[in-house]
Amino acid sequence: MSDPTPAILDRIDAGLGDAQERLFALLRIPSISTDPAYAEACDSAADWLVAELAGLGFDASKRPTPGHPMVVAHGGEGGPHVLFYGHYDVQPVDPLELWNRDPFDPAIDETPAGPVIRARGASDDKGQLMTFLEACRAWKSETGALPCRITVLLEGEEESGSPSLVPFLEANAEELRAEIALICDTGMFGDRVPSIVTSLRGLVGEEVVVQGPSRDLHSGLFGGLAMNPARALTKVLGALHDDEGRVQVPGFYDGVADIDAERRDSWEQLGFSAEGFLGGVGLSTPAGERGRTGLEQLWARPTAEINGIVSGYTGAGFKTVLPSEARAKVSFRLVAGQDPVKVRDAFRDWVRAQMPPDCTVRFEGHGAGAASAMDTGHPAFVAAREALTEEWGIEAAFIGGGGSIPIAGHFQDVLGMQSLLAGFSKETDRIHSPNEKYDVESFHKGIRSWARTLGRLREG
Amino acid sequence: MSDPTPAILDRIDAGLGDAQERLFALLRIPSISTDPAYAEACDSAADWLVAELAGLGFDASKRPTPGHPMVVAHGGEGGPHVLFYGHYDVQPVDPLELWNRDPFDPAIDETPAGPVIRARGASDDKGQLMTFLEACRAWKSETGALPCRITVLLEGEEESGSPSLVPFLEANAEELRAEIALICDTGMFGDRVPSIVTSLRGLVGEEVVVQGPSRDLHSGLFGGLAMNPARALTKVLGALHDDEGRVQVPGFYDGVADIDAERRDSWEQLGFSAEGFLGGVGLSTPAGERGRTGLEQLWARPTAEINGIVSGYTGAGFKTVLPSEARAKVSFRLVAGQDPVKVRDAFRDWVRAQMPPDCTVRFEGHGAGAASAMDTGHPAFVAAREALTEEWGIEAAFIGGGGSIPIAGHFQDVLGMQSLLAGFSKETDRIHSPNEKYDVESFHKGIRSWARTLGRLREG
Repeated sequence: MSDPTPAILDRIDAGLGDAQERLFALLRIPSISTDPAYAEACDSAADWLVAELAGLGFDASKRPTPGHPMVVAHGGEGGPHVLFYGHYDVQPVDPLELWNRDPFDPAIDETPAGPVIRARGASDDKGQLMTFLEACRAWKSETGALPCRITVLLEGEEESGSPSLVPFLEANAEELRAEIALICDTGMFGDRVPSIVTSLRGLVGEEVVVQGPSRDLHSGLFGGLAMNPARALTKVLGALHDDEGRVQVPGFYDGVADIDAERRDSWEQLGFSAEGFLGGVGLSTPAGERGRTGLEQLWARPTAEINGIVSGYTGAGFKTVLPSEARAKVSFRLVAGQDPVKVRDAFRDWVRAQMPPDCTVRFEGHGAGAASAMDTGHPAFVAAREALTEEWGIEAAFIGGGGSIPIAGHFQDVLGMQSLLAGFSKETDRIHSPNEKYDVESFHKGIRSWARTLGRLREG
Repeated sequence: MSDPTPAILDRIDAGLGDAQERLFALLRIPSISTDPAYAEACDSAADWLVAELAGLGFDASKRPTPGHPMVVAHGGEGGPHVLFYGHYDVQPVDPLELWNRDPFDPAIDETPAGPVIRARGASDDKGQLMTFLEACRAWKSETGALPCRITVLLEGEEESGSPSLVPFLEANAEELRAEIALICDTGMFGDRVPSIVTSLRGLVGEEVVVQGPSRDLHSGLFGGLAMNPARALTKVLGALHDDEGRVQVPGFYDGVADIDAERRDSWEQLGFSAEGFLGGVGLSTPAGERGRTGLEQLWARPTAEINGIVSGYTGAGFKTVLPSEARAKVSFRLVAGQDPVKVRDAFRDWVRAQMPPDCTVRFEGHGAGAASAMDTGHPAFVAAREALTEEWGIEAAFIGGGGSIPIAGHFQDVLGMQSLLAGFSKETDRIHSPNEKYDVESFHKGIRSWARTLGRLREG
């Protein structure tokens, strides 16, 4: 059989407009997983994907969970058995006033850097997951069949800590296990170099609620005598980092190793400039652990961040209130060697130990996933690296990932399966921020990249 | 002329229902001064008061300012010339869901401790200012005239730092100057002892805005390398107090003296229990400077409080955002000897000096008023103490005030005029909090107290 890839790539080029329309239909569904008000939209997004996969010949179904449903589909025969993973849920859109358009009314925006698809989820992750589905469509159209045996798993809780994921994997391990997982939720290094992520940071999310007086008080009548929970909370959070940027929770760095010489060398070759990277967002100075390179701080060192804090009166003007409660959302990015449960427990103990009299603290967990490290010797890594290099005309890189895609760890732990992470988003995509976008080039060449990768995987 | 006071008190008793109806009309106007959305309501409240005062025979007018208007009225002849001050603006009502009724739909609630008037502003300060106006009404009705020469000044910006007050006093000093100011915006000691406040803490309000990256960032992509402004802000605010409860801003205590033996003795006689006071709001442990008595912490020591803080995502669930901005509202209660401008500048310098690279800070001032200390040898203090003792059947006390009524300082500084502060609110009034109330007893006996005080002042 001659290689159908060139004809498939032509089909992808010719069908790009239709592919965009299909993506737009998915982007119009406001599937914000973290906010219960959008539960129905999450369900609708799952239904839409089931229909789409069925149309490609997959045996597709929506599978209930205690949270938002999973989409599972099976199709194709022969070749290696791959599991493709993506997520159909998106981040909240606030502050809405900073968007230039309705986040759920996608459009092509012409920009100096080329046309972009503008919408919440355009890049993270609806646009990316559709690159794979469209590659499958092109293979099916040209050859009448999928290139190999493919299982698809699409999640609806990735942006809210994936509470249902591990139980679902455990309950359906036999059905879902494949030779390797393909995950499209990552980006291009330096917005230019096609990249395969070979390590990912883990994530622990914690909500901290400090309670002081039984009601809001007048700061004149009670101030000086009554404990203010915002004082207690800022005291704790203000001590999260020392002056060298190191996290102060006892035991936080237990198990964390320095990177090996090979990684250090290959990362150095990427020519990363922390100043240039930060300059794009109005910053200039690395804020992580002193003495570590920029890429180490992003990819190989754990962090603690305050993602949200609120207490008292925050509206216009002033209110001399002594608040009864102070809340914060704090997250930790973890690296290989750290145990997420131990980190969470150490943080809680550390906070509790600092509570002054008259303050009580309670915690709400928002997920705890370990870091991942891949074995790049697996043949799929070779195939994907060659396919990406060919498509983009730039040598594809093995890079680290600062974000947390705990699914890679879960695939390893629950299914004993490696993950290959390749994606086409850019640092300019403003994921999780207002005016999120996905370059039309990323979408187009992303589809072509998967088509090529699937071809090479089929050939083995 | 025989003393008309007994007949006036009878009139007050007989007319209490009508007086409540008039207060309810004022309470229905949502005159929240700090929120621009309620500017028209503030204006309406001023109009209502002008009409009310005109009906009592005052020459009353609404006087424009750059903010909300002042109400000024002149009436009566002879006797000492007094200036009565109150404020018609109220605090915001959030969190609205904690109110048992619409905060601007006043009603009488029957409680185990007796009937109360429930509404935002019932106690602070609409109910209190109306005690004086109703006392004037009773005098006018019984004798055909006000008891002495009375100027009334009602402000609409007290809850938002009184930005227009000093310029207005300066521009109208001749018109407003009297022999003494009477201010009704304070409470009963221990909810039981009629009290005249002879010292007040000052107030400096500051909004601190820390800016980091130019937009919200993904904490996985940027976390570890990019500075988080919430980290910078909590680090500063977490260092506001040391472990002994002392404020750490350099020079903060400059000029602050220990209380003298006379005050120490008289305060000790009040039998104040910090534990009992705090127990009412679910607390138990004095949180101010170690080694100071409870009343010192409330009345004679300066404080720093976080009144509000907000950054990042604060809604339901979790968002792994690295926020671009962090804001806090911080206030300082000042005591005699502290210069509010110096405190403000010292705070700003101290915050600026702690900003890490990539964080900039800006400040917005929300008022700066000095503390006040009264000369209790003035004859009005004797008259009021006697009148209050007679009305309430309990020896009236000279007490300190933890709150800030900067007007007393401004009357001293701009008009060279002392202030006598007497009021009838209780610690249970929940001022600035949901379900604010004013006891019907406070309103009723408050009116009677002013009627008696005016009688004694007239007699000299």
